[in-house]
Order: sequence, then structure tokens, then C-alpha cells
Amino acid sequence: MKRITLPEAADALRARNNILILCHAHPDGDTLGSGYALCRALLAMGKRAAVLCADPVPKVFAFLAEGMPEPDFEPDYIVAADIATVKLMGDSVGAQYGERVDLCIDHHFTNSGYAAAVLLDDSAAAASEIVYHLLRVLQLPITPIIAECLYVGVSTDTGCFRYSNVTSGTLRIAADLIDLGADTTRINREVFETKSRSFAMLERMAMNSVETYYSGLYATVTVTQDMFRESGAGEDEFDKIAAIPRQIEGVLVGVSIREQKDGTYKISVRTNPPMNAAEIAAQLGGGGHPAAAGCTLAQSLGDSKKTLRRVVEDALRRAGKL
Amino acid sequence: MKRITLPEAADALRARNNILILCHAHPDGDTLGSGYALCRALLAMGKRAAVLCADPVPKVFAFLAEGMPEPDFEPDYIVAADIATVKLMGDSVGAQYGERVDLCIDHHFTNSGYAAAVLLDDSAAAASEIVYHLLRVLQLPITPIIAECLYVGVSTDTGCFRYSNVTSGTLRIAADLIDLGADTTRINREVFETKSRSFAMLERMAMNSVETYYSGLYATVTVTQDMFRESGAGEDEFDKIAAIPRQIEGVLVGVSIREQKDGTYKISVRTNPPMNAAEIAAQLGGGGHPAAAGCTLAQSLGDSKKTLRRVVEDALRRAGKL
Repeated sequence: MKRITLPEAADALRARNNILILCHAHPDGDTLGSGYALCRALLAMGKRAAVLCADPVPKVFAFLAEGMPEPDFEPDYIVAADIATVKLMGDSVGAQYGERVDLCIDHHFTNSGYAAAVLLDDSAAAASEIVYHLLRVLQLPITPIIAECLYVGVSTDTGCFRYSNVTSGTLRIAADLIDLGADTTRINREVFETKSRSFAMLERMAMNSVETYYSGLYATVTVTQDMFRESGAGEDEFDKIAAIPRQIEGVLVGVSIREQKDGTYKISVRTNPPMNAAEIAAQLGGGGHPAAAGCTLAQSLGDSKKTLRRVVEDALRRAGKL
Repeated sequence: MKRITLPEAADALRARNNILILCHAHPDGDTLGSGYALCRALLAMGKRAAVLCADPVPKVFAFLAEGMPEPDFEPDYIVAADIATVKLMGDSVGAQYGERVDLCIDHHFTNSGYAAAVLLDDSAAAASEIVYHLLRVLQLPITPIIAECLYVGVSTDTGCFRYSNVTSGTLRIAADLIDLGADTTRINREVFETKSRSFAMLERMAMNSVETYYSGLYATVTVTQDMFRESGAGEDEFDKIAAIPRQIEGVLVGVSIREQKDGTYKISVRTNPPMNAAEIAAQLGGGGHPAAAGCTLAQSLGDSKKTLRRVVEDALRRAGKL
């Protein structure tokens, strides 16, 4: 693994003609946005290029891939977009290409270094920010659809410019993308202001399951397999549910309890300062970041709730909140 | 009423020493953000300045006003921040100062022209954008707290950079405000990622009231006075409730039905293309914009729902959707 610069990455891409771009499995806006932006730019350079992803492109992002060729050629250069580890490629793609990646474009400081060369900027909010700079160095025209690819990447990885990873650089890139013709009004409406009917139903059920304890310092939301079945919502939409408890004013520890297909419970812990989610999850054999962490409990729902209450109560007490 | 330029407004402010700044009643982030940013900048110039608002500053925005003086002097210059009409000042402030405003800083194209001079930019997403430019022309240092005032204004009036009023200029100003020291991570968390307990309860009740018709092309949400009472939520938080129906995938017409204290129903109509909210509201004696409009119905809840269904069905039929 070798860290390379934007001009070095640009030179490497200029030198090759059959370029395969990998996105991670369960693709999100940033892996697809950075991948398809790069693909479209390489095609405009007259190269052969295509994107490969283990899973289908979600409907809301389908326009990014519209008209793009299938990966039906033998690549002489393989680029991974927004993929921190080989495992994230999905089994089939990882097995075929995981050890053959020439260039990884990434913004995760956890990048495992599996690629021959890495263009890494962990201060970037999205891999799409890095691709934006790369296209600038390559002096390629950023067409409206390329601008939309990059805008999808930058906006989705920041919760539409809401998360703590947003920098002034992120916002200036987004401004440039508007000037370059990205229809951000439509994208914002479709991506951030629209919920699938099944998700709207799951969200309603989840909100009805909210319980609060300790005068509202601790709140939980519970989602069962029955609720997934009844609503028809996918587990991929669960992130917005996990955010519900912590959003309630005064809550210091917000926990989501999600029944898995095997009957165990996946626990997501989100905290507001001064509480530490990673410390709470660690008590239960899990881990994560100070504000967001997780663990799995192989107990009944009732016992899981009791276990969580005990650990959270301890943590609140140690923090002088109880 | 005279339209003036940024340099002219800057000259006018430089010439006066006792400046009263008015915010509109039921104050939002933009009227407070633009008002307190200007107030803080004028104080830093050595002038006497204060903000006057008919209603208290909501808790979430209290930090904008921290340490600011009371309006306890006789002003020689009166500025209105983000106030389109005298009526929006509230009765008492409007009666006392409505006809005496020297300068109105506004971004509403509906500004009624009540002030002697108007600094109007209806392409600005927020009045705070205009104040940002004004402070630049005045060559005043934008301190971190002034940057936070302006960021609150710009971010709240755009739904954190999500609405169609966002321009590249909006994003570049927000980028500058980050570089000037605004703690946007904290502001985003407190303003956009936190709900009061009472609002969380009202939202849950509102979601349980959602009804859909015509295979999901039309959806309603209903909030009664009982629901306001039971939850303890204020009517000022209703905007996020009104957005619920249209957010559901496939919905072309989303309507919120809100019982008022006098027993009439305030109707908010939100549409997705090709439906036109203003046309629907106009059928019921109301009006508004193509995507968001409103009217009032003095009927029972049942009759109001029937009336709405009839008008929406007609509109969907005319649009070829039924």
C-alpha cells in the first residue's frame, strides 16, 4: 500500500484505457456518486470504463447509473471508490477483485490498505469530494450529470450538510456543483424529503414503541421482525430509526433495539455529551465511537431491555446524572 | 419606499448612533439571526443598538441574544430584519414602530414596501445572507458569534440547505461562516437533530393520523386542539408536521388539517410536480405558491375532509392522474 497524491492518481488514470471501478456492497450515495462520476469522466476521455457493485443500485440513485455500460471487458486498472476494506465489496466482488485493486479512493481513516495505491483524505466528508478534486486535476469538464453524481455523494454522506463531518470545503464543492448544473432541488427532494411508504409505516410503528426512563435521560426505540414484515421496510433503512431516541430533547442515551432474523437483538447506542456510547456498548461486548456504538444481545426482548437499563443506569450514575 | 443598495444601506447605518432592530413576531432563526448579527456588529462599531421582538426568543435560539442590551433608548434609526409586512411585527410592535421603519432588510418578494428604504434581495435564501454582505461592505469583523447568528439564519431558512431556495451563494456564505468560527456542528445538532419532548409526542400522534387516498396520490395529516393540549406542543412547531404527508413516496398532494382555537381548520397544501398547491388552495378561497399553499375551512372536521377530497380529486383528474 502506497499513499499517492492527486496528480499521481491523475497520471495513473491517464496511462490506462480499460478501467473497472468498484463500489461497495449495499451501495450508498457516496460510493455510487464517486464511482459513476469517475466512470463518466473516464468515458468522456475516450477510455473504456464501467462500474461494478455486488448489489443493485437503489431506485433513488438509479439516475446516476443511467446509460452506463456493463463491466464486460478485461480491466487493466481497477479502482475502488469509497471502499475501506475488501470485505465491504461483498463476497463475489471481493473474491474476484479484492486483491487486485490498483487504486483506492477513500475518505475512511480506517482504510485497511488493501490496494496497491491509496488516494486517501480522511478530512473529506465524502469520497466524492476527492473525486471532485481529481477531476479538477485531470482538467476534465464536470458536466451536469457528473456534478449530480458528486452532489449525491457529498450530500448523502453529510445528511445534507448536517453532520459534524461537514467542512467549509464540503460546502464550497457543493456550491461549485450547483454552478456546474446539478439539479440539487430535485435531488434533495427525492433523496432527503421522500420516504418510501413502507419506511413511513415502520417509522410510525417505531415511534409508537418509544419508551423513556430516568426523567427522559434514557430513551429506547424497539423494532421487531414482525414490524419489518408488516411494514415491508428493508433493514437498510434502519439508520433513521436508530436516530429517533437521541433526537428527543434531554435524552443523553438513545438506544435502538432491533430484532434480527436469528432472534438476537442488535443494539445501537447513540449518546449526547457527556455520555460515551462506546463505553456503554463495551460493557455489553460491543464497541464503536464516542457518539455512536453498538452490540448484540442474545436474550429475550424483556431481558435485553433489563440488561440495557442496568448498564445505562450505571453509566448515568457514574456521569453524575442520576 | 425606495430600494437601496448595500453601500447605501452601509452609509445610512454609519450615519446613525441609536439603532433599534425589529424582528418579526413568532421569531424564527432568520429574523433573529439577521437581527442579532446586525445588532452585534453595530455594537462593535461603538453604536447603541438593540433588538425588539413581540415574542420571546425560542430557547434553541437563546444563545444568539445572550448578553445583548434591552431596547431602552429612543432610536434615531429603525431597521426591520426579515419582516415582509407591518402585520408580521405583532400588534404592539407594529402599532409603535410599523410606520417608522427607516430600513427594511428583506428577502421576501412579497415585501409590502412599508419602510422608507428597502434593502431587498429576493434571490437570497435568507435575510441573513443580505446581512452577511452588508457586514462585508461595512468592513466589520465577523466574530464567531456573529458568524453563528448568520449561520442560524441561513441554515434554518433552507431546512439545513435542503430547500429549493438554496443557491451556490448560500453555500459559499455558509462555508465562510464555518471558516469564521461558527460552531455549526453544535448548531446543527441543537436546531436540526433535536426535538422537544412535546413536539416528539405531537409528531407521533400526527403520524398516527395519516390517511391516504387514491392509491397514495393524496395523503392527509390531522392535528386537533386536543392533540396540542395533550402533547403540550406549540403551534409554532407545526411546519414540520405539515411536511409529513408529501414526504411519503408517491404522494402528489399532501394536506395538513389543523384545528384552530376558534374551531375552524387551517389547511396547508403541499404538492409535488405536476400538481399545483396554489390552484388547489384557490378553489377553497386561499392561495400561496405552486408547491405550498393554504386556506381556512369553517366546517366540521368530517366536512372539511370531504371538501378537501372533492377538490383534490378534481385536481388529480384534471392532471390526468386519476
